[in-house]
Parts: sequence; C-alpha cells; structure tokens
Amino acid sequence: MTDDTERHNAKMAKKKAARDKIMATKTDEKGLIIVHTGKGKGKSSAAFGMIFRCIAHDMQCAVVQFIKGGMSTGERDLILSKFSDTCAFHTMGEGFTWETQDKSRDTEMAQAAWAKARDLIRDPANKMVLLDEINIAIRYDYVDAAEVVAFLRAEKPPMTHVVLTGRNAHAYLIEAADLVTEMELVKHPFRAGIKAQIGVEY
Amino acid sequence: MTDDTERHNAKMAKKKAARDKIMATKTDEKGLIIVHTGKGKGKSSAAFGMIFRCIAHDMQCAVVQFIKGGMSTGERDLILSKFSDTCAFHTMGEGFTWETQDKSRDTEMAQAAWAKARDLIRDPANKMVLLDEINIAIRYDYVDAAEVVAFLRAEKPPMTHVVLTGRNAHAYLIEAADLVTEMELVKHPFRAGIKAQIGVEY
Repeated sequence: MTDDTERHNAKMAKKKAARDKIMATKTDEKGLIIVHTGKGKGKSSAAFGMIFRCIAHDMQCAVVQFIKGGMSTGERDLILSKFSDTCAFHTMGEGFTWETQDKSRDTEMAQAAWAKARDLIRDPANKMVLLDEINIAIRYDYVDAAEVVAFLRAEKPPMTHVVLTGRNAHAYLIEAADLVTEMELVKHPFRAGIKAQIGVEY
Repeated sequence: MTDDTERHNAKMAKKKAARDKIMATKTDEKGLIIVHTGKGKGKSSAAFGMIFRCIAHDMQCAVVQFIKGGMSTGERDLILSKFSDTCAFHTMGEGFTWETQDKSRDTEMAQAAWAKARDLIRDPANKMVLLDEINIAIRYDYVDAAEVVAFLRAEKPPMTHVVLTGRNAHAYLIEAADLVTEMELVKHPFRAGIKAQIGVEY
C-alpha cells in the first residue's frame, strides 16, 4: 500500500470505530413526531419517500392531504392504484387557500381532515401517518396548534410515526417533535423563469 | 359574511392575483440540475419521492447509488420488483466508505458508478437520473467534481433532470445547479438515544 492509501484506510478505520461506538448507544425504538418545514423544496417529497419506504416494508400507513396540491395527483394516483391495501389516502380541501377565498369552507375542510387524521393516528395498525401541509392549515388558524400537540401527546400510539409537513411549522410543533428538518432554499429555477415541471414539482 | 371573513377573503384574493401574475412569467421548461445537500434528513427521501413522481407519470428514469446505504434496500426492492420497466436501478459500492477501508477499491467502485451514470444521462429516454450520495464520492476524491460539472454541461440532454444528493455538495456543483435545497438538521432523535428505525431511516 502507498502511504496515502494507508493514511486513508487508518482514517476510515478510526471513523468506523467512532461511528460503531455511537450507534451502539442508540438502542431505543419509538414512534416519532417528524416535522418537515422551511421554504425549500422537498418537504412533501421526502415525506412521500418515507411513505414509500413503509410500503416497501409492507407497513400499514396513511396520508391525509390538508391542502390539495401539496402532493401531486401523480403520487396519489400511484398509491391509490397500486398500494391502497397498504396505504390509505385522503385528500381534503379544494385547493390552496388563496384559490378558494372562503374561510368558513376552508375551516370546515381542514377540520374534517383533522378529524380523519385523528382516527387514522388512533388506529395502532397504522405505523406511519402523514399529515401533508397541515402546517398551512395551522398557520391560517383552520386547525389549532395546541390541540394538535395535545392530541399527539395523549393519543398517538407509542410506536406510530406521525409526519407533519408545510412551511412555517408552529413553535408548539417544533417543540413537541422528535425530528425536525428545515428544507432551506438555496437556489430555485423559478427565479430564472422556469415553470413548475412534471416529475419535479408534480 | 363577518368582517373577519371578509378581510380573510380579500387577503386571499390578493394573494391569488399576485401568485397568478408571478406564475404567468414562468413559461420555460428545461431539464434541471438538482442538488439536495445539508446535514439534515430527507436528501435521499426527497429525491426518491421525485423518482416515484416520475414513475407515477410513466416517465422513464434511473437511479445510481454511489454509496450503499444512502437509500434503503426497501426502496430499491420496491422499484426492482414493481417498476423496473420504468426505472433502472444500479447499486454500486460495498457500503459506507468507513466500513470498507480500501481506498483503491472504493475509487474503482465510484468510477464504475460514474461511468454507469454517464451512460444513463446520455440516453435521452431517461427523463430523470438520480445520482444518490454522489456528493460523498466527490468529497473523498473518488470522483472529480469538475469532471462531473463539465460532463453535465456538455452532455446532459436539455430536457433531462439530474438529481445529485449527499452532504457537503461541492461548490462547483452548487454553482452549476438550477435548484439547490439544503436539508438543515433542527432536531434529531439520535440525540435522545433513539436508533435508526424501519420506515423512517431505512
């Protein structure tokens, strides 16, 4: 071996030892409250990736879309057509709130979605429940943040993962969550005049 | 309508008008160079979500895993078993680099993955090609960042999307990319002694 290779291998061996030591202390399992927030892309896509991960492992799961348009209809159709046995899928609402301009109807829709979400979370058969774009519903006061947190603390079965997505996650949710990722926008093609494209945005 | 509802509706109507105006200027389509980086979770999951979005739209796509373990075997098995007609899937490498401790073999594996990636990107039938964890291979000098950027600029078909994931994206890649998202770690359950769990991490 060259000196360079030897140095590299020694460094990697050290990293592996350090990593193995750390991982050995991570022994507990629990159902997590997971939040994807921030202005960047990937909040719903990453959550949807986890739902497909569950489907891949044949773990029963469910999706409630609080705002139509958070996930694409392509994703919904794929789940409904191929995986409806494993993953329940509920789309509530009529489109983004600034497209409907009817606060009382939006509130009613969001409340119906939240009632559906509670039922799905209470059912311990569901190993993961995704509340897509619920943060938007909370932000517009269609759903109460304190009520969501209180419900999750009191009624979420210990092993169920609940994933909540959307910009501007409420401070109560961040506080209650086990895993929070902020998707930060570094560069976006809209700024260069590129429109939303199939496969990327929807 | 109450005053509150009227105010809300007026605000939403204004938002919708502003948004419609902005969206009307976004008319171009192009194949994007997309980078998911940062220390947070969701880089591979969000990329994988986009691959499933393509599959949902019946758009031909491909995945090259530069580091085994970036995506879970569950995800790979699901694609291989159900969607191999739409999405090619190649796993290269033998595990995380700190588990192999063999620089020359790692370099060989990464170079083989990069050669496969070039073939897949050159083929205009592929509408999206995901290079999962290529940033790690670049970081360890297994693959050259300048070469990757030069190849994408010269040979990527104009309508093909290429997604590159992994921490510590090279500055050349950030510069060349159309869309960059940094997944920032806000809170992680490992810190509370929780181990990697099925459906969440793999």
